[in-house]
Amino acid sequence: MTFIRPGFKLTHAGALQVLNAAVDAALAMGVPQCIAIVDEGCNLLAFVRMDGARVLSIDSSTRKAMTAATTGLPTGSLPENKALPLAEATDGRMTNLPGGLPLLANGQIVGGIGVGSGTSEQDLEIAMAAVTAFEAALAKAHP
Amino acid sequence: MTFIRPGFKLTHAGALQVLNAAVDAALAMGVPQCIAIVDEGCNLLAFVRMDGARVLSIDSSTRKAMTAATTGLPTGSLPENKALPLAEATDGRMTNLPGGLPLLANGQIVGGIGVGSGTSEQDLEIAMAAVTAFEAALAKAHP
Amino acid sequence: MTFIRPGFKLTHAGALQVLNAAVDAALAMGVPQCIAIVDEGCNLLAFVRMDGARVLSIDSSTRKAMTAATTGLPTGSLPENKALPLAEATDGRMTNLPGGLPLLANGQIVGGIGVGSGTSEQDLEIAMAAVTAFEAALAKAHP
Amino acid sequence: MTFIRPGFKLTHAGALQVLNAAVDAALAMGVPQCIAIVDEGCNLLAFVRMDGARVLSIDSSTRKAMTAATTGLPTGSLPENKALPLAEATDGRMTNLPGGLPLLANGQIVGGIGVGSGTSEQDLEIAMAAVTAFEAALAKAHP
Repeated sequence: MTFIRPGFKLTHAGALQVLNAAVDAALAMGVPQCIAIVDEGCNLLAFVRMDGARVLSIDSSTRKAMTAATTGLPTGSLPENKALPLAEATDGRMTNLPGGLPLLANGQIVGGIGVGSGTSEQDLEIAMAAVTAFEAALAKAHP
Repeated sequence: MTFIRPGFKLTHAGALQVLNAAVDAALAMGVPQCIAIVDEGCNLLAFVRMDGARVLSIDSSTRKAMTAATTGLPTGSLPENKALPLAEATDGRMTNLPGGLPLLANGQIVGGIGVGSGTSEQDLEIAMAAVTAFEAALAKAHP
Repeated sequence: MTFIRPGFKLTHAGALQVLNAAVDAALAMGVPQCIAIVDEGCNLLAFVRMDGARVLSIDSSTRKAMTAATTGLPTGSLPENKALPLAEATDGRMTNLPGGLPLLANGQIVGGIGVGSGTSEQDLEIAMAAVTAFEAALAKAHP
Repeated sequence: MTFIRPGFKLTHAGALQVLNAAVDAALAMGVPQCIAIVDEGCNLLAFVRMDGARVLSIDSSTRKAMTAATTGLPTGSLPENKALPLAEATDGRMTNLPGGLPLLANGQIVGGIGVGSGTSEQDLEIAMAAVTAFEAALAKAHP
């Protein structure tokens, strides 16, 4: 019987680099954002609220990251009739708001990123820019 | 690199005067209201529950103020499919109920006012009366 | 009557630089830490949890930052008979654990930093290193 | 059998007058305060956070008012071994921090006032000034 299994954990150095990539993308777009990165246990790893980003987006961006990390899928694709019941059943932590993307390494979930304070399209675009930067850096560091 | 940026804070004297303007408008209308004023960080600055106003409107009026302060926009204009998900993702603090308006000084958000206990139309009308009084007093005090 | 008063806000660029100074100090010490920075309204601005830092320190480090930002004082100096009552009366957000320091600019509170996951002495030492870096950078950027 | 009994309710006009008396006393003392007034049902009636008062005192001042209103006694006089268990059993709403006083009319509890952000002595002194103003105004209005 096997008692333990190998896994990957996102480092704080990697998380901060992904966070900075999201900040750069948001600055280029001219839309201040809240950006949250959680690990595979849905626990906060890194966060920033940019100048002018919404205070109430602190929670929503974090929950987008949590939802993406727990499902391994982008947020926003749940069927309408499941989205609110799942939010209710998780004290609002499972959200269907767009702007959350999983962070994957070797096909394994290592975390999630959530972006909030702009429109759904803006939030998602920033998250995608950060994931692209993550994947490029990952490929370079672990070829 | 810049570490700090200048900003404005709503004073308690200003907040109480806006609160009193809302009370006067509600008395003139004959509709008792809960009236909340928060600062730009969504923290409570001033509050009153008028005789006969609903107890459960303490929370809803405060959350209208918070939503207006965090977005810089009147409450009630969110698309249907985002209103409840945003409420869920913020523990109910982001609300789409009408009756919340931002308080702006020099084009910058300094807080929000939320009114609740009447109909949506009554709540919004009282909030608008208070914002009008705020803007007039602001122009006079800081020409 | 005065409706608004001038103030300063900590920028996200400044907050991230203070965060990085704390990370560097923690790496030099060899003690992984959770590091949180909040603004003067006790709202989260920046956060990182270093590799190996305690998951439950996410909350305690954030609350140290909040306590320092709301009081303008280092955490840990409350008299015994007030520490737990204040924690209870604020849903645990006011904490007397050492490791929280205010961030001051021109003698005004612009936020707070909280560090948690090590011993009290280690937490405080990292927070002090970050504040020292903040003050040096502030003096250079805003002489 | 009697189904209903007469009672007194604190008006919002009265609550705001007591609030203003507390603000005046705090200004005279030079200590910014959070001041909360609740009715006999422990529900918020009026509130103000003065310029420079602590954000985390929003909750603690309100809970002092609630505690005084529910007990009819000044806060701070509970025996040590009951204070924290009562806080725990009420989600922190029952507090033994000084600065809460009941508002009484004809020997009946009509509410409570709570003051927080200064030292215990300062908080209590402001609350006492407000209660004195309340009793004087009450005697004059209802001789």
